[in-house]
Amino acid sequence: MPLTEFEIIKRYFTHRARGAVLGVGDDAAILRARRGVELVVTADMLVAGRHFQKGADPQRLGHKALAVNLSDIASMGGVPRWATLSISLPDANERWLAAFARGFMRLARRHGVDLVGGDTTRGPLNISVQVIGEVPAGRALRRDGARAGDDVWVSGTLGDAALALAAGRLRLAPRERRALATKLDMPAPRIGLGLALREAARSAIDVSDGLVADLGHICERSRVAAVVQFERIPVSPTLGRYRDRPVARAAVLAGGDDYELVFTASRGQRDAIARISRRLRVRLTRIGSITRPRRGRPVTVIGLDGRPLSLARTGYSHF
Amino acid sequence: MPLTEFEIIKRYFTHRARGAVLGVGDDAAILRARRGVELVVTADMLVAGRHFQKGADPQRLGHKALAVNLSDIASMGGVPRWATLSISLPDANERWLAAFARGFMRLARRHGVDLVGGDTTRGPLNISVQVIGEVPAGRALRRDGARAGDDVWVSGTLGDAALALAAGRLRLAPRERRALATKLDMPAPRIGLGLALREAARSAIDVSDGLVADLGHICERSRVAAVVQFERIPVSPTLGRYRDRPVARAAVLAGGDDYELVFTASRGQRDAIARISRRLRVRLTRIGSITRPRRGRPVTVIGLDGRPLSLARTGYSHF
Repeated sequence: MPLTEFEIIKRYFTHRARGAVLGVGDDAAILRARRGVELVVTADMLVAGRHFQKGADPQRLGHKALAVNLSDIASMGGVPRWATLSISLPDANERWLAAFARGFMRLARRHGVDLVGGDTTRGPLNISVQVIGEVPAGRALRRDGARAGDDVWVSGTLGDAALALAAGRLRLAPRERRALATKLDMPAPRIGLGLALREAARSAIDVSDGLVADLGHICERSRVAAVVQFERIPVSPTLGRYRDRPVARAAVLAGGDDYELVFTASRGQRDAIARISRRLRVRLTRIGSITRPRRGRPVTVIGLDGRPLSLARTGYSHF
Repeated sequence: MPLTEFEIIKRYFTHRARGAVLGVGDDAAILRARRGVELVVTADMLVAGRHFQKGADPQRLGHKALAVNLSDIASMGGVPRWATLSISLPDANERWLAAFARGFMRLARRHGVDLVGGDTTRGPLNISVQVIGEVPAGRALRRDGARAGDDVWVSGTLGDAALALAAGRLRLAPRERRALATKLDMPAPRIGLGLALREAARSAIDVSDGLVADLGHICERSRVAAVVQFERIPVSPTLGRYRDRPVARAAVLAGGDDYELVFTASRGQRDAIARISRRLRVRLTRIGSITRPRRGRPVTVIGLDGRPLSLARTGYSHF
């Protein structure tokens, strides 16, 4: 007997929602936001064949589907609280569902997120997640707060997720290959960093479409431009070995899926940011600065020779 | 040149979000809930070939994708405030998108709902909507409030949406066929009714899976049973002509997609409910009553001969 929708929800996606007045099981969930907060709301859709391969590991997929949304909450400086999950599946494969739910729910528990609703239906594999978070009123980290003179910072290292997709063209040890795949499949949303940056940063975004494209979004919304020093961009040792190859350069500048935070802060915040880095044990690197707006593309990347790199492919477009 | 994701969002889905601090265009939207409210949150996914035909009219689809979520908010007694829309499309067909957005945004404006975020990507046609509404704290209409002795009520008429799917097997005038199709494609969420029922009703649900299944959900959550008189269930004149045929009986009892409200209320509320019906000009019909729980299926439907009907197909399952 195939599972019905009700059985699927009951078996795999029902947990005691401590932060909700009423969780899964009614027409809608009932939530109570804390006093003095604003809500930050985000939604992302992952499609088989586009965002992941059809045979992708379901546990990793469950993790990633939630992680990409948590990353959006992190880049706003929010605390994630509630999620909804709508999923369309070719069939009600119990094994697949159990693994998917394990990956999703494990990450949800780690960040105190309650799954409060959603929908399951039959159809081509499609995973649509929404997350609601909280942020003290007026304190969200937005894209539109950058000012000329700000430093540009990035967390962690960039490019590994995109390099994982090109791994077939590189000579890599199995261990390196697995490490890159983990970066691509199991991004760690920078929730703690986003919270700490509410004090120190003026603007922030997560790197989902690629550094140049995402920093470009900050520039557009803030009506500024940015200059980045290519050699300052932090990369993993594996990526470093290929740094001068076009595939690696593209991964660093235009590779999506790293889910690190790019943020801007005044020069006066450098010590505070160094303290945050030590406290959270997250590498934070100053890679450039914000300038006044100018004609042409908002983001300039300067190479080792002091001249701007030409940026053929600057970001991921979903169409 | 195909449209990029950014152009699609900008062109079709950006409007001034009056009820949001920050709408489309950042990593997440920022919302401020009113004081003393709880949030009601719902999510639904519509898949081509399952919930609608591949060539379905995009404007009607835009309407329906939002309407089914608004209906969930209505059945909670909530005021819908914000929506997110994630959509996967085989190609960025501008004409299709413009029509879809027209249907979606028109209904959103009618109910004061702001589209505050979402995602567009390429893939098999899939529409995933989430709506957040508000309800005064502790006042939501839930499924678990029904008590033995309550009347069972339903709004409007039932069965037309399901009959539209069987229209090929019936002798219908073109005008009748169009009217049924409109009931299926363009449901009117009962927002005003849900608000009015916060005072009068003890429990409510919207008819999305079929009367017997949805009233059954109320019974399960409330630990009661229900008895419904088949001949009292209100139907349209068109459906009435086929009332004794199995296809019509199945449409009335097990047809989903009507998006009317089924609710329970104490007998003392009959006058109040009649007043609500007159004020809102919505037909409200008493079709049965709630009883103590008993063995077997929670909902019994009594036929004209006074004996229970056998209910082979009692509701829609998504798998």
